[in-house]
Amino acid sequence: MDKKPNEVLVSIKNVEDYVLEIITMLNQGAEEVEIKGVGRDIGKAVDVYNMILDKLGNGIKLDSVSIGSENRDKKRLSFILLRVKKVY
Amino acid sequence: MDKKPNEVLVSIKNVEDYVLEIITMLNQGAEEVEIKGVGRDIGKAVDVYNMILDKLGNGIKLDSVSIGSENRDKKRLSFILLRVKKVY
Repeated sequence: MDKKPNEVLVSIKNVEDYVLEIITMLNQGAEEVEIKGVGRDIGKAVDVYNMILDKLGNGIKLDSVSIGSENRDKKRLSFILLRVKKVY
Repeated sequence: MDKKPNEVLVSIKNVEDYVLEIITMLNQGAEEVEIKGVGRDIGKAVDVYNMILDKLGNGIKLDSVSIGSENRDKKRLSFILLRVKKVY
């Protein structure tokens, strides 16, 4: 699967690991991070967003939420894409 | 948990069961249905939406997607709320 710059694909690691990764990206100058979750990891992607919101509060805003489906290994999987922007 | 009219809480049943329930609601005159998934069922809620989109195509549109967290049994759980509208 293609991965865009500033896209974080939530998968087998712990929620905390992704949270740390994303907060580090934002601290290092990223203006926007896309959190993606596919199939069973859609819920985990939302967990990651909620934990980042807890930690950064008004420092971020949820720019958009997209859902859809994509083909992967001949199976059709749902995905979610959460676009988070830094707020100054 | 409070359940609004036209809200479908996706939980232990099969995806197909929720799809049938929602299509029936729309056929019986509902203008809008809210699909909610909590915790591990967030991904399943997105699956339900994608399958409805497959079946109804241009007959529906995704009005909004909300994500957040709520307390339930003293645990904090992420949720997703997909608002689907009928299109004429």
